[in-house]
Amino acid sequence: MIHQTHLLQTSTNGKGTYSLTRQIEELVAQSGVNQGAITILVQHTSASLVLMENADIEARHDLHAFFDHLVPEDTPYFTHTYEGPDDMPSHIRTVLTQSSQTIPIIDGVMALGTWQGIFLFEHRVAPHNRRVAIHIGGA
Amino acid sequence: MIHQTHLLQTSTNGKGTYSLTRQIEELVAQSGVNQGAITILVQHTSASLVLMENADIEARHDLHAFFDHLVPEDTPYFTHTYEGPDDMPSHIRTVLTQSSQTIPIIDGVMALGTWQGIFLFEHRVAPHNRRVAIHIGGA
Amino acid sequence: MIHQTHLLQTSTNGKGTYSLTRQIEELVAQSGVNQGAITILVQHTSASLVLMENADIEARHDLHAFFDHLVPEDTPYFTHTYEGPDDMPSHIRTVLTQSSQTIPIIDGVMALGTWQGIFLFEHRVAPHNRRVAIHIGGA
Repeated sequence: MIHQTHLLQTSTNGKGTYSLTRQIEELVAQSGVNQGAITILVQHTSASLVLMENADIEARHDLHAFFDHLVPEDTPYFTHTYEGPDDMPSHIRTVLTQSSQTIPIIDGVMALGTWQGIFLFEHRVAPHNRRVAIHIGGA
Repeated sequence: MIHQTHLLQTSTNGKGTYSLTRQIEELVAQSGVNQGAITILVQHTSASLVLMENADIEARHDLHAFFDHLVPEDTPYFTHTYEGPDDMPSHIRTVLTQSSQTIPIIDGVMALGTWQGIFLFEHRVAPHNRRVAIHIGGA
Repeated sequence: MIHQTHLLQTSTNGKGTYSLTRQIEELVAQSGVNQGAITILVQHTSASLVLMENADIEARHDLHAFFDHLVPEDTPYFTHTYEGPDDMPSHIRTVLTQSSQTIPIIDGVMALGTWQGIFLFEHRVAPHNRRVAIHIGGA
């Protein structure tokens, strides 16, 4: 039985999606787990974690544009604005997406679909260092 | 200690929600796990997984209608459209809902609430075969 | 190896977010798990679970206001309304947020970020008793 934990750091260049897939695949390969699951948690409230189409970058551009429209930075009733107009929308976009994902490990590899990539979704305009907590459990 | 994995296949008749509850309850019953957790992952980026009211089908119809309004198929700024007008909305509806769920197993059964059902949420208009990866861990 | 499960009850005073962080931190401390993960599931379809900014209560007020605007109680096409105008919006707000979260446990504590709190998000107007199922697994 294996229970491993890791803390990753990743830097962003502001708003957008950043692939974590390869880095996490390597952790799973090194873990020695054949049947189990991996949990990935973004430790922030203004960046989140999504499973998204990994082939066509235009799909991710459309995703970014959609969230800009859905949670506008100039929403008139927001009061939590002292870090800037992207502060409160970042919290809401985080809640509307995911902070954690758990993915089965089958025969030693993450059981993602062919087109599924794991992306950190940065919601702040400024570059940030982001931390990701990971647990791998199985046998 | 038990670590089991499964791959299920399910077919859809196009947009809508499809119950997986009974099939997954049976896997939990057969697993022999008394205290543990089950993780369910839909291995696609245009279909997702929701825990939703399981009694009144009108609640699910309203859910479908809401997502049709929230992410319209004729959104003018979408560029990832070569698979049709339902392509990009499907990716976004997936990100706005969930791809995976983890549910505690207590005394040998999934600890769902009375009204919670597990549904695959198909976002594409055409029928699809969908794969679901599962991990059951516990003792 | 440890596999523990718990059922918590919490009461709400109607719509809003209610912190579960301290109560869950205590369960993790008592579990004896050093490396592992905790899964938390709200067993309802009209209340959900979010990881949200834990310092400024105005951020949560803005969050509540946003969901009131995004899923209006007077949406004209809703048909599942026999429990009142807050019934169907509650189901949709649950699906748009999360029902479960899994959080790594590292060195004996939940690996939450500094600003992350665990909140039950009550979507119904009337006070409710809510149940939360928990699994802690690890070593």
